Amino acid sequence: MALTEEASNKVFGGYQKVFSHDSKEVGCRMRVGVYLPPQVEENKKLPVIYWLSGLTCSEANFIEKSGAQKYAAEYGVIIVNPDTSPRGLNLPGDSESWDFGVGAGFYVNATQEPWKKNYRMFSYVTSELPKLISDNFPVAEGLQSIMGHSMGGHGALICALKNPGMYKSVSAFAPICNPSACPWGIKALTGYLGSQEAAKWSDWDSTELVKKYNGPPLELLLDQGLEDNFLKSGQLLPENLMEACKSSGVPAILKKREGYNHSYFYIASFIGEHIKYHVEHLLSKKL
Amino acid sequence: MALTEEASNKVFGGYQKVFSHDSKEVGCRMRVGVYLPPQVEENKKLPVIYWLSGLTCSEANFIEKSGAQKYAAEYGVIIVNPDTSPRGLNLPGDSESWDFGVGAGFYVNATQEPWKKNYRMFSYVTSELPKLISDNFPVAEGLQSIMGHSMGGHGALICALKNPGMYKSVSAFAPICNPSACPWGIKALTGYLGSQEAAKWSDWDSTELVKKYNGPPLELLLDQGLEDNFLKSGQLLPENLMEACKSSGVPAILKKREGYNHSYFYIASFIGEHIKYHVEHLLSKKL
Repeated sequence: MALTEEASNKVFGGYQKVFSHDSKEVGCRMRVGVYLPPQVEENKKLPVIYWLSGLTCSEANFIEKSGAQKYAAEYGVIIVNPDTSPRGLNLPGDSESWDFGVGAGFYVNATQEPWKKNYRMFSYVTSELPKLISDNFPVAEGLQSIMGHSMGGHGALICALKNPGMYKSVSAFAPICNPSACPWGIKALTGYLGSQEAAKWSDWDSTELVKKYNGPPLELLLDQGLEDNFLKSGQLLPENLMEACKSSGVPAILKKREGYNHSYFYIASFIGEHIKYHVEHLLSKKL
Repeated sequence: MALTEEASNKVFGGYQKVFSHDSKEVGCRMRVGVYLPPQVEENKKLPVIYWLSGLTCSEANFIEKSGAQKYAAEYGVIIVNPDTSPRGLNLPGDSESWDFGVGAGFYVNATQEPWKKNYRMFSYVTSELPKLISDNFPVAEGLQSIMGHSMGGHGALICALKNPGMYKSVSAFAPICNPSACPWGIKALTGYLGSQEAAKWSDWDSTELVKKYNGPPLELLLDQGLEDNFLKSGQLLPENLMEACKSSGVPAILKKREGYNHSYFYIASFIGEHIKYHVEHLLSKKL
């Protein structure tokens, strides 16, 4: 598959690039951010961390606002951050709301019309994209982790829980932990998968997935700002996921951050800690 | 003078705030970013660094993209970053080009119609704003430094050179070093001040100002990406300023950065180094 370089900027000794490519899974041109740390020059194979963004984001938000490149350069890890949905398809209704359709793919594989042909972000993120990355960049085989924010935190969690062993570690900033039980999730899962009665929403909900997780040991690192309005309005529900982890014996950590909200200012404050956590798991050593 | 808080986000333990206020100097409502590091909670008086942004920027670009808060928190320094021009005045022609008028105040005091009443960014930045900041925040008296980018690098340099002793240190990322001799500068100085024959452009041009600098010892820290297209097209002219410094005995350092361009990715990569430099001068000790 051919990648077209759309942007390349030197930052912290490496290069923050943006590529576009034709995606088979989602049937349109997709953009993806790739940070190549300075260690790429040493002809080493490097581990990769995937970042999944939240509602309304493109690949640009994380690239411009998270400050992740500093830590990726320090630890010698590639960071890959895809877009949050297909774009430019003009499906009926795909741009009517900010929490469904364009910018809001929810990292599921849709089964409902008119979404099922293109809204296949789960397969895109867990299958097509890793192949594309390993075909084009010096990636150490099997050394990948995943993290995300809000809708993308949900995405990171379900990608890891549905693919035991695929990711060495998973973390999430202010994730939508129980989409079957919150307004954003109910809207998205109904639209993409059909009603809860007819569809198996539990296959796309971390709080349900941990209950049937049956793979190699996996710890969930959850991070939550305590001044997050979406926490207060019941969109995130970390307590439900923590309870499910406890009852099903899946280890989980919830870092509570006093005074922080849902923004990239919050993410920027702790992204270094998360990257360090992932690199420790990827390299199997304390840093 | 009353400040209205427009935004407040916790980041790296402190708060990134945005305020608006009525400015007498520029005759309109102005927005300004203020980062208050966690040390503010300790009831200490803290040093301040001013950041001046480049063409087209508002206060938002630096706040969202520079990553400066991390270092300000680490070193315990307040960072203040104003907008780049008056806004909302709808003066004839103020929005016709991106390099003149709105977003392009050039940090001068205009003498020409229709600009002279409002385009007084020099007095705003060096007089009105510091008073506003020291009236409202726990600022250590006399402990201020200044830095900026591109047009704002020019701004930082002229603010320091025209006010000997006011700033403990000055630094500039990819500054417009000799506006009298580059297209951006010639357009701006002609528009705001009148023709070079009639006006004293040399009072607003770092390369000229260093030749007559006669204050306490001041070192200029210049920083320049070598893949900067505006360097290549002759808008920045650091060699002219370095030559003038050399011939007039003003110490200057030019950090050349291989592979870096004019973007905030470049700024983010080195802002920590600049903040450390300023704090060392503000506190008169090596860190």
